[in-house]
Amino acid sequence: MADFTHFNHEGRAKMVDVSDKPETTRTAVAHSSITVNREIYEKVTGNLMKKGDVLSVAQVAGIMACKKTSEIIPMCHPIPLTGIDISFSWEEEEADYRLNIETMVKTKGNTGVEMEALTAASAAALTVYDMCKAVDKGMVIGKTYLVEKTGGKNGDFKRETPLK
Amino acid sequence: MADFTHFNHEGRAKMVDVSDKPETTRTAVAHSSITVNREIYEKVTGNLMKKGDVLSVAQVAGIMACKKTSEIIPMCHPIPLTGIDISFSWEEEEADYRLNIETMVKTKGNTGVEMEALTAASAAALTVYDMCKAVDKGMVIGKTYLVEKTGGKNGDFKRETPLK
Amino acid sequence: MADFTHFNHEGRAKMVDVSDKPETTRTAVAHSSITVNREIYEKVTGNLMKKGDVLSVAQVAGIMACKKTSEIIPMCHPIPLTGIDISFSWEEEEADYRLNIETMVKTKGNTGVEMEALTAASAAALTVYDMCKAVDKGMVIGKTYLVEKTGGKNGDFKRETPLK
Amino acid sequence: MADFTHFNHEGRAKMVDVSDKPETTRTAVAHSSITVNREIYEKVTGNLMKKGDVLSVAQVAGIMACKKTSEIIPMCHPIPLTGIDISFSWEEEEADYRLNIETMVKTKGNTGVEMEALTAASAAALTVYDMCKAVDKGMVIGKTYLVEKTGGKNGDFKRETPLK
Amino acid sequence: MADFTHFNHEGRAKMVDVSDKPETTRTAVAHSSITVNREIYEKVTGNLMKKGDVLSVAQVAGIMACKKTSEIIPMCHPIPLTGIDISFSWEEEEADYRLNIETMVKTKGNTGVEMEALTAASAAALTVYDMCKAVDKGMVIGKTYLVEKTGGKNGDFKRETPLK
Amino acid sequence: MADFTHFNHEGRAKMVDVSDKPETTRTAVAHSSITVNREIYEKVTGNLMKKGDVLSVAQVAGIMACKKTSEIIPMCHPIPLTGIDISFSWEEEEADYRLNIETMVKTKGNTGVEMEALTAASAAALTVYDMCKAVDKGMVIGKTYLVEKTGGKNGDFKRETPLK
Repeated sequence: MADFTHFNHEGRAKMVDVSDKPETTRTAVAHSSITVNREIYEKVTGNLMKKGDVLSVAQVAGIMACKKTSEIIPMCHPIPLTGIDISFSWEEEEADYRLNIETMVKTKGNTGVEMEALTAASAAALTVYDMCKAVDKGMVIGKTYLVEKTGGKNGDFKRETPLK
Repeated sequence: MADFTHFNHEGRAKMVDVSDKPETTRTAVAHSSITVNREIYEKVTGNLMKKGDVLSVAQVAGIMACKKTSEIIPMCHPIPLTGIDISFSWEEEEADYRLNIETMVKTKGNTGVEMEALTAASAAALTVYDMCKAVDKGMVIGKTYLVEKTGGKNGDFKRETPLK
Repeated sequence: MADFTHFNHEGRAKMVDVSDKPETTRTAVAHSSITVNREIYEKVTGNLMKKGDVLSVAQVAGIMACKKTSEIIPMCHPIPLTGIDISFSWEEEEADYRLNIETMVKTKGNTGVEMEALTAASAAALTVYDMCKAVDKGMVIGKTYLVEKTGGKNGDFKRETPLK
Repeated sequence: MADFTHFNHEGRAKMVDVSDKPETTRTAVAHSSITVNREIYEKVTGNLMKKGDVLSVAQVAGIMACKKTSEIIPMCHPIPLTGIDISFSWEEEEADYRLNIETMVKTKGNTGVEMEALTAASAAALTVYDMCKAVDKGMVIGKTYLVEKTGGKNGDFKRETPLK
Repeated sequence: MADFTHFNHEGRAKMVDVSDKPETTRTAVAHSSITVNREIYEKVTGNLMKKGDVLSVAQVAGIMACKKTSEIIPMCHPIPLTGIDISFSWEEEEADYRLNIETMVKTKGNTGVEMEALTAASAAALTVYDMCKAVDKGMVIGKTYLVEKTGGKNGDFKRETPLK
Repeated sequence: MADFTHFNHEGRAKMVDVSDKPETTRTAVAHSSITVNREIYEKVTGNLMKKGDVLSVAQVAGIMACKKTSEIIPMCHPIPLTGIDISFSWEEEEADYRLNIETMVKTKGNTGVEMEALTAASAAALTVYDMCKAVDKGMVIGKTYLVEKTGGKNGDFKRETPLK
């Protein structure tokens, strides 16, 4: 049975020693979403044709938060990220619309980037909420989870079916 | 029909002018959750009796992230928060366990603290994920949403029934 | 003759005491620019029709840097900004094109926001450089200066003619 | 007997609600020091005549860290500081030299600035260590403590005799 | 006689060029402490049995501040830390109680982590002060110093006897 | 014709993948300036003989901002900088005085440091403005540009003649 690695012999949190882990290319993909009503959906997608739009602000927010991950998650190692990308897609969900957010993060470092991918996805979803909350505060950020991870000695991870 | 307020006349994002909004006491309550397997549940709750534990790290993470909200959410105003609290509760969910996270944020400022409450909830959930991911990367962060908001001229908001 | 106010009796820098200055509405407008070649101009303006573009990233960068001003400028007071806006306009300049950047910042605080407006303008210009430097590293960020300032006991400031 | 105020009903840390505390002028003075050998003393004080010196870097570091206090101390409220000053004085201590560091912080806010003054003093001392550690790593940062505090409903505090 | 390395030819501070230093594993151990009265001692140690406690907040604070070292200490290089741990122990000191704080930091980088270890120790001590200051503002943070350092071309450092 | 590299297939900004770029030593030199009136010039240069001065604060500000570049410029990679230096020189400019600011940044990383050098130069210039604005708000920050860049597969860059 795997053990928690984030605790020291006094039972208190520590930032795990990764000095002996190899520097390899590692990737992680995470997913989040936000469900909005039709009015917001139309405004957001209508703005896509304009110069600025909700999704491009969310994109920047996700990327910048990704780089802040080790400041937000206490036991996360600061690592030099080598690539971050975020993509969006819309899906109808009964009377509402769900914006799917998928983030992809890469590093050449000695620890994985799962938290970076998850943090980017959360920040992008929160930013969409912020940009649209003047219209409706009832939006709901959907399930947020790791989709895939490669690299590192603990093996890869892949979630076969998307969650709603 | 309410308009997006985060865009200027060129269609680009701006940080809305709130100079004329009154400085009043405002509160917001947000909810998130994370579903973990039995092994993690037992380890986390078992640690509650020890000196350090997953939830106290998540608590600190949520509070510190809350204070960083205007650095994470691009169009959020920096405001002096006057109080932040986070509480946790466990619930069985079929074979798994859901940790409910509820955040409460207060300010005496000229804009609301919905984003601060939501950011605190997300950061707390992400931190639980980080602390437990050595055991299982399949954990899922549940729906994240605003529960309640008071203060400010736009009226209060209250979600009547909790979401799963 | 006005004195430097940022030094203490030992001749060392201090953050000036503004406790007794009134909390009033204060605004500042600053200007910067960046001159780019025709190829970059065409790519940037061509992208305006797409979902994301250089200028919307620069807009977000300027706003976020503006909120970081007191972390970047050592003797700047941290103040709660109430509004930030940035606008862009293009101008031909011989064979090249100059992107003018104008920032407007507001606060209800006890010190002015000149540095916030200037920092936002610089960050927006630097971001345009970053986004376009794969095409040409010879871009030049133009003069950066205060255009206008209102509020506060020291009187208003207005630069009558724009600088190139 | 006064109670810890930084814990919620679950026994976990919270950022105390200060919404009802009055906004008044509050000050705090803190003290730290660092003891260095004669070689470092002579180099540092000799540099005082030059354009840059160890103490002016430490001064800037203390002021900037002071503004970061609520990012460093988890349960600290973010408050708009209105003034920060730091002064230095040297004292012989047997074969060595002690640099005394005194910080003074002011706010017009609804909570005190003790932590801000202490954080500024610590950061200034740490910076002196950093600037001089190529010469000797045996420097010792001395006792760090609150000297005085005014403002707020809990009354003033004053330590009568300096500590070594 | 070793020279200050943090100054350029104009006598002003610079961040030293470490490009040619080898990337090796480096460690540093630092020590700080805080002396509290019996009432605080009993409250803090009594809380050890509860879910959250002063020391676990201080632990998180020390680790997060450690990752911020290069933002707090002006001439410090940003380096990817590979491990951080903090341990606490109590000691009676006449009528009072001293909490000893020991931090251990590791990197695989081209410069040492002395400042990171010292910053973590200071931040942990400051956080204990913050969490307990509602009971007594007379607490004193004790001497803060480097205990040990390994790795790097300048040789190891070890302080033989602990300081009080 | 070189392409913008900061956009993904949806036309939105991304942080470019540099995982496959070699880790080599890279340098960048950037230039900015600020033109001040005679009164400010005399005060600033007169202070050079004192313990603290405008330029040493600007020096620290430039170095600290340089380390924050990836937080300020959205698509910039976080990279471990190995050296930062800034130098100043004065030049008469008709009735006024221009302070030239030159920054030099080094890394051993897989992407260049042009943005770091430019950001340092801008922050230093902004800090001089801040320190002197009580005397005259009409100061103008001059052209800011890349002077030279070495390392990396895209070849070196060198601007032959300085700009005014």
